[in-house]
Amino acid sequence: MAGFLAKIFVWFLESRIFGALLLYILKKNNLIHKLVSNAVVEESPVFVPLHPFEELNEKEVKHINSDLSPSEQVQQAIGCLPLPSKKIVNGLKPSFCRWTIMDYSKAYTSGEITPYKVAERLVAAIRRLKESTLRYERGEPISCGAIIIGKTNMHELGAGTSGINPHYGATRNPYDPGRITGGSSGGSAAVVAAGLCPVALGVDGGGSVRMPAALCGVVGFKPTFGRVPHSGVLPLNWTVGMVGVLAGTIEDAFLVYAAINGPVPSHETSAIPPPKVYFPILQATNSVPNITLARSREWFNDCSDDIRTCCSQALYKLYEKYGWKTVDVTIPDIEAMRLAHYLTIGSECTAALSSYLENLDIAESGWDVRVALSVYGAFSGEEYIKAQKLRNRQMKVHRNIFTKADVIVTPTVGVTAYPILNDALQTGELDYINGAALVRFQIAGNFLGLPAVTVPVGYDKKGLPIGLQFIGRPWSEPTLIHIAYAMQSLCIPECRKPQAFYDLLKKD
Amino acid sequence: MAGFLAKIFVWFLESRIFGALLLYILKKNNLIHKLVSNAVVEESPVFVPLHPFEELNEKEVKHINSDLSPSEQVQQAIGCLPLPSKKIVNGLKPSFCRWTIMDYSKAYTSGEITPYKVAERLVAAIRRLKESTLRYERGEPISCGAIIIGKTNMHELGAGTSGINPHYGATRNPYDPGRITGGSSGGSAAVVAAGLCPVALGVDGGGSVRMPAALCGVVGFKPTFGRVPHSGVLPLNWTVGMVGVLAGTIEDAFLVYAAINGPVPSHETSAIPPPKVYFPILQATNSVPNITLARSREWFNDCSDDIRTCCSQALYKLYEKYGWKTVDVTIPDIEAMRLAHYLTIGSECTAALSSYLENLDIAESGWDVRVALSVYGAFSGEEYIKAQKLRNRQMKVHRNIFTKADVIVTPTVGVTAYPILNDALQTGELDYINGAALVRFQIAGNFLGLPAVTVPVGYDKKGLPIGLQFIGRPWSEPTLIHIAYAMQSLCIPECRKPQAFYDLLKKD
Repeated sequence: MAGFLAKIFVWFLESRIFGALLLYILKKNNLIHKLVSNAVVEESPVFVPLHPFEELNEKEVKHINSDLSPSEQVQQAIGCLPLPSKKIVNGLKPSFCRWTIMDYSKAYTSGEITPYKVAERLVAAIRRLKESTLRYERGEPISCGAIIIGKTNMHELGAGTSGINPHYGATRNPYDPGRITGGSSGGSAAVVAAGLCPVALGVDGGGSVRMPAALCGVVGFKPTFGRVPHSGVLPLNWTVGMVGVLAGTIEDAFLVYAAINGPVPSHETSAIPPPKVYFPILQATNSVPNITLARSREWFNDCSDDIRTCCSQALYKLYEKYGWKTVDVTIPDIEAMRLAHYLTIGSECTAALSSYLENLDIAESGWDVRVALSVYGAFSGEEYIKAQKLRNRQMKVHRNIFTKADVIVTPTVGVTAYPILNDALQTGELDYINGAALVRFQIAGNFLGLPAVTVPVGYDKKGLPIGLQFIGRPWSEPTLIHIAYAMQSLCIPECRKPQAFYDLLKKD
Repeated sequence: MAGFLAKIFVWFLESRIFGALLLYILKKNNLIHKLVSNAVVEESPVFVPLHPFEELNEKEVKHINSDLSPSEQVQQAIGCLPLPSKKIVNGLKPSFCRWTIMDYSKAYTSGEITPYKVAERLVAAIRRLKESTLRYERGEPISCGAIIIGKTNMHELGAGTSGINPHYGATRNPYDPGRITGGSSGGSAAVVAAGLCPVALGVDGGGSVRMPAALCGVVGFKPTFGRVPHSGVLPLNWTVGMVGVLAGTIEDAFLVYAAINGPVPSHETSAIPPPKVYFPILQATNSVPNITLARSREWFNDCSDDIRTCCSQALYKLYEKYGWKTVDVTIPDIEAMRLAHYLTIGSECTAALSSYLENLDIAESGWDVRVALSVYGAFSGEEYIKAQKLRNRQMKVHRNIFTKADVIVTPTVGVTAYPILNDALQTGELDYINGAALVRFQIAGNFLGLPAVTVPVGYDKKGLPIGLQFIGRPWSEPTLIHIAYAMQSLCIPECRKPQAFYDLLKKD
């Protein structure tokens, strides 16, 4: 639904009497009444998905002292990376189709290029673009030698999954500018996919890092809740939103993780003691940890044919090369968890935005955001607390799964990048079918605070990227990075330059 | 408001259209709109009032290993008690006007009396009572030699402060059976005050242990949130309710605290590590810790003249005897905190009770409970979260106060036990003036999870008990017990037997 139809729908929703009725029907059709409001849940509520730190005795990891600076942590992480293969050493040719952090670092050290030169060329390249989606602010260099090159476009208020923003333009997929990037951190995925920079940050409250990463063919990594401080992040949703990394390779995602992980101020997390930090040692390619993957078959298969085939093949490659087995598990109440998460993120967004919304003319917002805000504000305190009871229940369910397997594996999203409709450009779109297909596999990462990573594993028949997601135990980042590294080494897609995007860059 | 007026009010409140309007007006008059819903609060929400454990370096305390059993902990606690004064040794005459735990323990050991005999006499005494307020269930002896003698009456659903229960009768104050005990754990306070048993448990979600303790002239002690497991407690309000102890003396409250404190299952509290346990050493009467008391003068004085005079005199006695100084502090936004707490406990109660309420004929409930349930269910998820932002803010405010003083001191309640109106017996009462005076000083103990203790310090002109409250730093139970012990030793009221109650006992 977009354009005129969307207008009518929003008009009804925002009217006082029809709106209340419509919301009641929406909640009912969405099973919110049945699965959340009226569900009998014995568990007490868990408001914050914080897990006690446990020693996991992971293989091929290195303990990192908690008093190291970000730079020192990055140095430690570099020491964990595999030795460069010949391909990379050969005249500083990037190892991937895009420059990695180590490529930049080596080129700086050798004098091949200077950071200033990189910044200069990049600014010139970005200046050539007229697209309002790529407006940016010039930042200042921070620690570890990173150059902040700008802020990227995103879904308005983070309240959607398409990345179509009626104010700043639709974020366009480097693999096909007629298609979405996904969102909300769509711009972050696009700039990394296009090779404008090796890494970007995003905030993942309901898949907002992993979805666009998968749709744009890059790595998306969202650590455990409580692993990365929220400082500097607009507090839109306190208990489900987490900082994540989008990068061309898992090694780069790892290096940025090394720079940003750190003790979370105790006021943010009540009384959690800082979790210990371990880094994966990726050098020891012959001693890859033995991994068991859990798959809920029905859920896993709830995606397009191309995605199902590609993701299944990726699992088979892991089995063939490393002997990693996939075991079938049942995950009950996935739909109830999705609704409980929706209710939670909705209530938290409303609370976070209310003082801004007062001064905002709602008519300025996209229609999809207006619908979201109407529904978001419709939940009661009672419903919010019941959602937290379901959170407790699902934390138990997942703890149980992790006694049988190291990670849960799913397609990252159920569809590949879909086309941007013309009439969605001005109003945003209300595409709940595709939206549901995108968000289907995201929830455990946010609602339960579990770490998760998406790795590109191939393309569909149209040449659009497909991602495979691994969801790990709390605090098991090293295992997830090991797995993503193994997966990446088996699936490096042919060095497919996102040609369409470069064509766009060259346009003027 | 009681009887017919209450009926009319409830009828309006429960009707669909008038009810919504009335709730809107109620919220507005209660400043909920201004102080909670529309307040701009920068702080992120804190959902659970859990404080990280800190070493407080308290004086005259003893570290207790975390692996001791309840019995072993009680033995350790007994070792911390002062040597019995002559008064007590003298022919096993109780030290207080009621038998203490140590009195029972010594009498059992010496063969003076057996536990069976005590139980037999008690059952006989209780059987003589026809009052439905004293219906009980016979329990089984548990660890540490305690005999569970029954469950006591309480305010219906814990949703009120008077202790008047239209189903089981009004709980009557041993000092004057025409007056309330306060609630919700009114029966617990009454049986201890009447000397039927040395200690009783209660659950304090909004002062429910401390208010009746003060109104009935006994000690009420509510440890830090997270100090006592919630197991066995009906989960009515997860983030503000705490198990507390009502006892004739602070020593007895301490011994029960020694038996019930213990590691809280991690699923209840996300990821908190068990706090260390210290016990106060009460033997060293000459080395009383040096204490600074914080008083918010305006707030402290918001009570009846008799209470103000009596509590101020108590503070003066502490200064005179121990040199403990009282410093004046300002505590901002006390009313906003009260409303945020109300919104929190209301939403949590609704979520906790909803599956029971479905099968309940609301007409069976007291009018006050019906009003409470109507208002409790009227808060949005957004409002609930905003209340948690205020929780964070007040935690900061209180942390700051505790840099200047060891405890905050207040009257426990603003009025002494008020009369039970005849027409309240059937319907419950809607006395929001007295209710507010009772609840005024309770909130920090619940909403912020701070430990608090009330000690009887005297009587008003009618001979009704007055309590003084000390609110401590997180985890500072030893200091609170030290202070309460010092206060008690200066204020042991003349051995005033709750005569009226014994008269009632003798009635048939």
